[in-house]
Amino acid sequence: MAKRIYNFSAGPAVLPVPVLDEAREALLSLGESGIGILEHSHRGPEFLAVYEDAVDRCRRVALIPDGYDVLFLQGGASLQFAMVPMNFLAPKATADYLVTGAWSQKAVEEAELYGHVHVAASSADANFSYIPREIDCTEHPAYVHFTSNNTIFGTQFSSEPEILRNSFLVCDASSDIFSRTIDVRKYGIIYAGAQKNLGPAGLTLVIIRRDLVESGNYNLPTMLQYRTHADNQSMFNTPPTFAIYVLGLVLKWIVVEGGLEAIERRNREKAAKLYAFLDESRIFKGTARPDSRSQMNVTFVTGDAALDKQFLAAAEREGLSGLKGHRSVGGMRASIYNAFPPEGVDALVDLMRRFEAEHV
Amino acid sequence: MAKRIYNFSAGPAVLPVPVLDEAREALLSLGESGIGILEHSHRGPEFLAVYEDAVDRCRRVALIPDGYDVLFLQGGASLQFAMVPMNFLAPKATADYLVTGAWSQKAVEEAELYGHVHVAASSADANFSYIPREIDCTEHPAYVHFTSNNTIFGTQFSSEPEILRNSFLVCDASSDIFSRTIDVRKYGIIYAGAQKNLGPAGLTLVIIRRDLVESGNYNLPTMLQYRTHADNQSMFNTPPTFAIYVLGLVLKWIVVEGGLEAIERRNREKAAKLYAFLDESRIFKGTARPDSRSQMNVTFVTGDAALDKQFLAAAEREGLSGLKGHRSVGGMRASIYNAFPPEGVDALVDLMRRFEAEHV
Repeated sequence: MAKRIYNFSAGPAVLPVPVLDEAREALLSLGESGIGILEHSHRGPEFLAVYEDAVDRCRRVALIPDGYDVLFLQGGASLQFAMVPMNFLAPKATADYLVTGAWSQKAVEEAELYGHVHVAASSADANFSYIPREIDCTEHPAYVHFTSNNTIFGTQFSSEPEILRNSFLVCDASSDIFSRTIDVRKYGIIYAGAQKNLGPAGLTLVIIRRDLVESGNYNLPTMLQYRTHADNQSMFNTPPTFAIYVLGLVLKWIVVEGGLEAIERRNREKAAKLYAFLDESRIFKGTARPDSRSQMNVTFVTGDAALDKQFLAAAEREGLSGLKGHRSVGGMRASIYNAFPPEGVDALVDLMRRFEAEHV
Repeated sequence: MAKRIYNFSAGPAVLPVPVLDEAREALLSLGESGIGILEHSHRGPEFLAVYEDAVDRCRRVALIPDGYDVLFLQGGASLQFAMVPMNFLAPKATADYLVTGAWSQKAVEEAELYGHVHVAASSADANFSYIPREIDCTEHPAYVHFTSNNTIFGTQFSSEPEILRNSFLVCDASSDIFSRTIDVRKYGIIYAGAQKNLGPAGLTLVIIRRDLVESGNYNLPTMLQYRTHADNQSMFNTPPTFAIYVLGLVLKWIVVEGGLEAIERRNREKAAKLYAFLDESRIFKGTARPDSRSQMNVTFVTGDAALDKQFLAAAEREGLSGLKGHRSVGGMRASIYNAFPPEGVDALVDLMRRFEAEHV
């Protein structure tokens, strides 16, 4: 088997090797069942145990209170961009959106199909290189939506935006879910595509306050109402069983690693090492404002597109893959999600040092 | 590793062992890439090759003409129940639906949210035990929708319903897609959840005529317009990469097995063996009308619920799993999709013979 390389991909992204090893074993037979995990009926006892383990582990890892449902949906954050306003934004009501990058902009566009959108904060004025501090909410927003981490621009909210108690917070946490401790009670809805910190692409984790599930719009396709999934243990129709299984293994791995506190500490150390190097480098430069830096996606440039390209080629040669920045911004991006090993960060810093020595 | 048993599950269902073997190898490294299939960026060359192989194989296996797009979506047939009318049923227009079971009924319910539904045929009068021959279409239906195979009731259309040229045929082929040769040109849209004949749950194959893609409603969430997916090679957002990979392997296996003609022949032989036994049995009895029998799901009863239960227990003991009928109808159901081995059918007939000898 080929030697595994350092995968800095922004998502789908690196998964823990113990998770992959266990999934391998389950492909031909889940435990002693004689039926592979891909082949088990979602109504059978074996998969029901897989499902319950996955939900329980979510609850334990993130201390999700009883008043919240844990749902496994499909369609990624992009479908949530529409489902949230379809369910909670009445035609004449207004929802507040914090616009901190391409994904929150897309969320705004979908909401505008259903009601009014008020942009309560935006960092578009500086190419989304920072997280706005000032938030100007309307008096009675249907909800306040934000993107906790901006994969493309390498910025991240260091804590939840403060909002009035008459509304609720909706968070697209696709790229930093379970990367640090979280106080779920501050949120109405948290949603996240699984393909960065949780598991395979094709699964969306939704954590939603139960009173919201019940209050959502009824005049919608069955599959686009949260209650459909909450009332049927995410099995109104066949769920993405394998992705749920792998998510459960990833959460087991988080527990073994020491839970979200330990994961957060390690993530901070990995990011700090990269940012420390960028701050002292003479040719590499971080693109996010220091007070807004992401712990998940570290974006940087040399300021010279040809030199960026040369660096990316050198990285590929050394088995550091996926460092190319998003096609809309260029430069470099090191995505260092939970499962990305600290040794990979060391290898990157080492390469950057050598590259710098050769090119200053 | 546990010995594999005979898995008669209606879906997720048995997959070919060579497919599972190859997927196992790819979990830690896809080919020599050093990155597992779950971890590859959907924008990278390795996954793009996987995607293109999967589309090409669909086209070759089913002889899909150039004027059709092959899309990989999420949400299962249940989301298609809504997407079809959202895109193609204007508020005052009428769509014709053939109601042959629980799934087509659900499709009707979703369509009623958007326009008028005319039930052009129904077998509800005999608990969906047959496929209606008489179809009473409206003059200008937006489309005509049918379910080619009814998993729960064990019935199947032996050929496409005849419709007028002023409309187009929409088919939910979730449980018999690529189980026999198909003339795609007879259809406007064919959709199918992957979890029976194509691969893992969480992937929906959609084959759609390109002029329909272009004519769909624009006033919809981006993710619910077919054009979004057609214009972006099914990668408007992160697609279910692993499921697409496995689908590609399943199609490769179909080619190795001799293509749809050979698959169809084998499926007919498997089903014929079971129906021949049921027709001569003194205690087991098929539930579908002989002219409407499914080649994929063979449903049968003893007529005595206690005896059914005894038989199911005996089957489980012998490693014949998943034979319990759908919870809404009871009895037994042998799902014998493409990948179900002929030896498993022999084992089932053998057990039924012995059970009959003991219980007559």
